[in-house]
Amino acid sequence: MMTSPNETTGADALIAASAKAGIEVCFANAGTSEMAMLASLMREPGIRVVPVLFEGVASGAADGYARMASKPASTMLHLGPGLANASANLHNARRGQSPVVNWIGDHATWLMPHDPPLHSDIHALATNTSKWVGRPHRSEGISALASQAVRKAQEGKAGVSSLILPMNHLESALAEPLVLPDFKVLEAKHAPEKVIEDSAQILRVAEKPLLLLGGPAMDAISLRNAARIGEAMGAKLMVEQFPRNIRREEGLPVPERLAYLPMFARQQLANHDLILCLGADRPACFFGYGDEAPLLTGPNCEVLNPIKDGICPGTFLADLVLFLGVHDKTIVGAEERAEKTLSGPLQPETICRAMANLLPHESIVICEGITSSLPLYDELAGAAPHHLITNKGGSIGFALSAAVGAAIAAPKQRVVSYVGDGSAAYTIQALWTQARENLNVTNIICVNRAYVVLQMELMRMGVQAEGVGEDLTHIGRPDMNFAKIAEGFGVPAVEAHNLEEFSKALEESFARPGPGLIAAVF
Amino acid sequence: MMTSPNETTGADALIAASAKAGIEVCFANAGTSEMAMLASLMREPGIRVVPVLFEGVASGAADGYARMASKPASTMLHLGPGLANASANLHNARRGQSPVVNWIGDHATWLMPHDPPLHSDIHALATNTSKWVGRPHRSEGISALASQAVRKAQEGKAGVSSLILPMNHLESALAEPLVLPDFKVLEAKHAPEKVIEDSAQILRVAEKPLLLLGGPAMDAISLRNAARIGEAMGAKLMVEQFPRNIRREEGLPVPERLAYLPMFARQQLANHDLILCLGADRPACFFGYGDEAPLLTGPNCEVLNPIKDGICPGTFLADLVLFLGVHDKTIVGAEERAEKTLSGPLQPETICRAMANLLPHESIVICEGITSSLPLYDELAGAAPHHLITNKGGSIGFALSAAVGAAIAAPKQRVVSYVGDGSAAYTIQALWTQARENLNVTNIICVNRAYVVLQMELMRMGVQAEGVGEDLTHIGRPDMNFAKIAEGFGVPAVEAHNLEEFSKALEESFARPGPGLIAAVF
Repeated sequence: MMTSPNETTGADALIAASAKAGIEVCFANAGTSEMAMLASLMREPGIRVVPVLFEGVASGAADGYARMASKPASTMLHLGPGLANASANLHNARRGQSPVVNWIGDHATWLMPHDPPLHSDIHALATNTSKWVGRPHRSEGISALASQAVRKAQEGKAGVSSLILPMNHLESALAEPLVLPDFKVLEAKHAPEKVIEDSAQILRVAEKPLLLLGGPAMDAISLRNAARIGEAMGAKLMVEQFPRNIRREEGLPVPERLAYLPMFARQQLANHDLILCLGADRPACFFGYGDEAPLLTGPNCEVLNPIKDGICPGTFLADLVLFLGVHDKTIVGAEERAEKTLSGPLQPETICRAMANLLPHESIVICEGITSSLPLYDELAGAAPHHLITNKGGSIGFALSAAVGAAIAAPKQRVVSYVGDGSAAYTIQALWTQARENLNVTNIICVNRAYVVLQMELMRMGVQAEGVGEDLTHIGRPDMNFAKIAEGFGVPAVEAHNLEEFSKALEESFARPGPGLIAAVF
Repeated sequence: MMTSPNETTGADALIAASAKAGIEVCFANAGTSEMAMLASLMREPGIRVVPVLFEGVASGAADGYARMASKPASTMLHLGPGLANASANLHNARRGQSPVVNWIGDHATWLMPHDPPLHSDIHALATNTSKWVGRPHRSEGISALASQAVRKAQEGKAGVSSLILPMNHLESALAEPLVLPDFKVLEAKHAPEKVIEDSAQILRVAEKPLLLLGGPAMDAISLRNAARIGEAMGAKLMVEQFPRNIRREEGLPVPERLAYLPMFARQQLANHDLILCLGADRPACFFGYGDEAPLLTGPNCEVLNPIKDGICPGTFLADLVLFLGVHDKTIVGAEERAEKTLSGPLQPETICRAMANLLPHESIVICEGITSSLPLYDELAGAAPHHLITNKGGSIGFALSAAVGAAIAAPKQRVVSYVGDGSAAYTIQALWTQARENLNVTNIICVNRAYVVLQMELMRMGVQAEGVGEDLTHIGRPDMNFAKIAEGFGVPAVEAHNLEEFSKALEESFARPGPGLIAAVF
């Protein structure tokens, strides 16, 4: 049924209820089934609509936004295929505990029985990444579900909500006046006092305890609290392999980072008799090789995870500090690092060092360098105050897209995406949105023309990377020219072949508003 | 368990059984969980491995390959996220009745209970696009499933098979000697004689019958047979909206094409009292607008679909011709068209006309122009003999990838991908594989800097494309430079701004082996 401009449609209900629940940004690639959403967004000044050329950019941007804004953005996706395209970065958002709300258009309910070409099982697809999936049965049900989608994305362990919205319910006029559901901001949930007590007690009796930080417990306050507990209880501080957003600044602790490769991670954990997981998961292998043990802990190590049932890790740390009475404990923090001399060829170490030297205050570094990023965590310790965001989900194509969302959440900060060439090729279309929105993003592409991590895996198997092994792990022949590609998408770009060129390019990009790209060719 | 080079692994069983079942090409983007497959492929000369930079290219290429080779290729995908990235083009393959076999790596079974970061519900994801999903319980079960995956993809209505392969089962040595399952080539299934008789009878009594061709019934023999039946029974010949692969050459019938927009399609079908679906589905709306009827047929039209239970549409047509005794019926076929004068600005009509004038013999035209492709079907009628492939699934990002597969299936033929700028941006990474494999593909990008079809949809709703409406339907600001992007991926490219430049570029690309790209800027 076509509606007159004065009638309130299901789509209007979606947009108004979502805006009331705090949605301020929508990363969108619309199709025919989403036209009513688009029409409603034209009348809603409270939601900024950011166009993307591919849905994987929308979901990655929503993830990056959530990591800095600590609340969800929405995505607008075109039926099953749009959701499928978004799913790899939704997987990353799920693993990164980032709240994201998907608005997925679907066919009119009366057309579905006829199985039109774009019809597919959207619900099955959504369950792969979503903690909650909703589908209204009529237009009047949309506002409540829209509000609930935001709530479900945020509460407990944050994650992905998916709303599947049939076209006829979006386009139809409401039969009842629109009443927007109340939306209360979630309060952080405390752990029961017994859990705090037990955690303190087990820390007291452990001989070599370890505090493993993860998830959202890496802001400045949480890091300080964790360090106070560690100092008081003789516990070592460590962060999980891929921190979702860790604050770095002078005076904050620099926890050791758990290694990616099991052989190194096992060494790090070998001598501990207790691991207290604080927002982190029980440490397990990223991949399972041969007949190894799946868990990375030693045989006599107790692993305790007191953060359950929606308890906020940061609140837990604060409560434990209070319980232990260690709020004034002195901690050892990062020292401002002396600038290191920059010379020699481009290597991951020297690139990271140059970044550390030149990083603007309050930058947001988004890291997806796989092997190229190994030195980044340590090299950036003591750089100017910044946030470091990494991809826990392991699905590549994250950084360029997450940079879009982080830059929109924090428009006055410089975002640095640091990414390997293989990963950059995945959602390269993100560059266009960076240009369209004139976002302050410096993209650094580490161009080694290989999936180096896979070459390492072949070595592990005792297989020479030749023939098919070479074909599938080298991404030269032809060499991609990322500067040309970036310019093609509207982002100014340069190639750097040595440290002098790289540092100069970095300074220039940091000084110039808007996006830029540096292809660091090894 | 690490295996010695002399042992046969589960991955070896996969590759050997698949090769025996006819798999000759694997479009691959490997990750850690697929290293054993890669190692086995290094020892299997019968399977060509084609690297891609993004899994959507792999699935689109497998679809394009199937449309020309009439048998499946495999894809190699990295866990759930790899399958998710492939899924939009798998959706298109499903709708295009293209057999495709996915090899999806998964975690070691002993690691899954610990929910490692890349773990997700791959089965749920696979059901969205697959007609069959298999998962071995041990290494020894892989060879039978590998063979079955090929069979399931091909039999009945062809489609997508997905094999989910845990890393430990791939890497472990077989406890039993490998015995490869027999694989017999499928024979085309005939309809029961009663169905042939009934179809003939209902055609005899209908006053205005229509034969609606679709699916795989558009090869030269099927087209001729359909035209003979049409001539003999006074039935009109029509093809579905998006033909999967229709043969065009002098003397072959040129069936009218069913329109995309319901208002036009309804007019085409209004006066018929019988529609016999021959490989096509019952004609329904692509999208459901307002309170329209979902089916496109008139109120007094009978729709009959005799092609069920795995019956081969081409065989059905041949059987019906035989039953009716009309195998020597004269048919009206396409005439070789006179070359038309080329002047004036670039428009979809003139671009298609220039293509028709210059098309090399035995080209394969892959069409994904959305609004730019509207004139293509008619303009190419009477051009040099060619195949026309379109995307029935409606998920954009098809043509550049399908071109990869078509060019590998038919290496001596020129492939022309004709694609809008919005669609081209989706799987732009396909250009790199075209360059890597030096494929004979001419990519024509229609650069109108807009999702024009969405602008039409907004007009339908009476909404001005301004503000957000303009932001989400225009993809200029910045204008993409497809020539630069293509060169960045290693494909020679030019921009054309008028018909003279376009024709010259087309001739040059057709004459030069390997890939090329022409950005036709309107």
